[in-house]
This record gives sequence, C-alpha cells and structure tokens, in this order.
Amino acid sequence: MPSPDPFHDMDETQTALMRATYDALCEHGYADITIQRIGDEFPKSKSLIYQHYDSKDELLVAFLETMIEHFETEIPVEDSTDALDQLQTLLDHLLAPQLETERYEFTSAMTELRAQAPHNEAYRDHFSKSDRIIHEHIADIIRLGIDQGTFRAVDPDRTAELLHTTIDGAMLRRTTTNETADISAIRHEIEEYIHRRLIKE
Amino acid sequence: MPSPDPFHDMDETQTALMRATYDALCEHGYADITIQRIGDEFPKSKSLIYQHYDSKDELLVAFLETMIEHFETEIPVEDSTDALDQLQTLLDHLLAPQLETERYEFTSAMTELRAQAPHNEAYRDHFSKSDRIIHEHIADIIRLGIDQGTFRAVDPDRTAELLHTTIDGAMLRRTTTNETADISAIRHEIEEYIHRRLIKE
Repeated sequence: MPSPDPFHDMDETQTALMRATYDALCEHGYADITIQRIGDEFPKSKSLIYQHYDSKDELLVAFLETMIEHFETEIPVEDSTDALDQLQTLLDHLLAPQLETERYEFTSAMTELRAQAPHNEAYRDHFSKSDRIIHEHIADIIRLGIDQGTFRAVDPDRTAELLHTTIDGAMLRRTTTNETADISAIRHEIEEYIHRRLIKE
Repeated sequence: MPSPDPFHDMDETQTALMRATYDALCEHGYADITIQRIGDEFPKSKSLIYQHYDSKDELLVAFLETMIEHFETEIPVEDSTDALDQLQTLLDHLLAPQLETERYEFTSAMTELRAQAPHNEAYRDHFSKSDRIIHEHIADIIRLGIDQGTFRAVDPDRTAELLHTTIDGAMLRRTTTNETADISAIRHEIEEYIHRRLIKE
C-alpha cells in the first residue's frame, strides 16, 4: 500500500534494514530470500540483523508490520474530501491496469508471503490484522459517503468486504498468471457495482 | 472444483497416486509435503512415483492438471437449465460461508500451490490455463443467460472476470486469515451485483 517512502520516520538502522528487506524481496521473491541476501542490500554490519532477528520469517513479519503501520498512519480518510473521489483514488491505485516492474515484483513477493499464512501463525496473525485495517479503511470511506449524502445507506462492512476481496483476488490473479487476468474489466464492473449499488440517483 | 470423485476414470496406478497426492496435500500442505509423504499415502511401490516424476513440483503440477481436466469434463454448462440457477449453484459452492475441514485444508494447499507461480513457470502456466478454463465456464453461463433472455446484454467476459476474481479473493482471504473474511457478506453483495447489473427487470 505504497507511497514513495514508507520508511522515513523510523530509526536509521531499522529504516536501512526495512529498505534492504524491501529491495531483497523485489529482487529474489520469498522463495529465494535469505537473511544473507537481505544483508547484501544492507549498508551496515550484517551482525546487526542477527542481533535482532532469529529467522528470515521473523524479519519478514516485522517488515510486514512496518508496511501496515505506514498504511495506517499515512493514508487517512479525509472527512473534507468527497468519498467517491477517495474510493476512486484507492481503486485507481490498487486496480491499476498495469504495474511497473518494481511494484509488480513487490506485489508478487506479497502473494508469496501471504501464502505462508496457512502453515505459519505469525503470518496468519499479521494478515488477519492487516485485513481488518484495510477493511476499516474502505468501510470508513463508505460511511463518509453515506454521511455526505452521496452514497445510499448500504451496510458499509458488507460493501467493504466485496471491494477488499475483489482487490485481493486481482492481486492474486495478476501475480500468479501470464497476464491472464483482465484488470481493466474487473475495474469496469466494480464501477458498475458502485454506480448501481452505492451512488444515490 | 470438486465433485465427489475426480479420479474415477484414470488408470488405476495414476488414480491411486493422484489420490495419495490429494491426501498428502490436505494433511501436510505444500510447505511440508515431500514425495516421501505422498508415498506414505500411496498403496503401491514408491518406486513407481520416482519412475514418473523427478520432483515434488513436477508431481504437484500433474496433480493440478488432473483437477482442472476433471473440472472441464465434469462440470459442463447445461443449455437446458436456467443460467441464473447454474450461476447460483456455482457461487453456493465456491462462496460457501464455511468449509468442512478436508475442503478447507485442500483449499489452503491450493493457495500455497498458487503462490509458487511467481517464481515457477510450470505453476504459472498451469494457473494461467486453469484461470482461462474457469473464466470460460463463467462466461458461458452469462452468455446462456443472455440467450435465455434472463440476463441483460452485458459483456460476458467482463462479468466473468469480476465474479472469478472475487471468488479467488475470497479463497485467498479465508485461507490466510483467522476467519477475518466475512464470506456471507461477500456473497450478499455479489447477489446485489447480479440483480442490479445482470438480471433484466
């Protein structure tokens, strides 16, 4: 859930380590990442990594926590802004028809990390928490639209669940196929849903 | 994409091996599966496995191919049956509010297998192909509904993309969180989409 610099307000060493993790994930993906390879991207002593993290999974879960804290603090719902605009901005970002190489690589790594959840409780707990945060973010936008009088009095939680799930499905399909998923088509039909279900006539 | 016995028309050894793979996947998941563990579920000589497959991934991709061939041959679109009924039956199955243990375990393993695709071309090719087959299946139902005069003249491919992507997103979310995803809410809103966008008034 990226904006240009998710690492700006962290302590310097931690910042450098999280950036190294991001770079190593983009380069190697989960399957081939090791603490050694994260260390290769890290400008300080590798021993600093081993002092703080016992395993690559422990470090990766800490990395995911950083990403979601960034999402929470940096992307608030703006009461002063039109809810439909906020929803469209979010969808423009998450259902972009094409992703640039680095973002595609990072999104692919996120798919791999997420797939650790069925057998790893720490990942499972993280994605349960991040799902709740993203759900609340979308539901807040829907609630705002209802308050602003633009949206019908739908159930914000149900609407958020559909939008959130479709976004996650698009992420999964585009990172696991040879461009089989037509993201523009998905966006088009989500727009139809929004206009027919959400927006007051 | 299950009916009770996807393995019934295969040669006996191959059938036993695919069933052993299914059982081992349910029991161990991708992360902990080995040819040895598949062999433990296999009533014949383990050497038969090594004669045919060089690696666990080769065997698992063959298993996935069997599953999708089963889907293709066993779940046709019935021209004589109401398209809306066929769509609802599909959604009842794929967006069931809760999954029984074995199906949940198998679905979790499918999430793990799918997440091999970003770094493994054989999985990627498989999921590209299976996505196209599932897409065509849903698009055929939409086309049938248009022909039957129940559905509006929507673009069947776009509609299929949304439904397919939402189904995949629900699968991903439910297998990677602690029951955070509200599948009934997703189904409810998909129903709203179908009624507002698809069904003629």
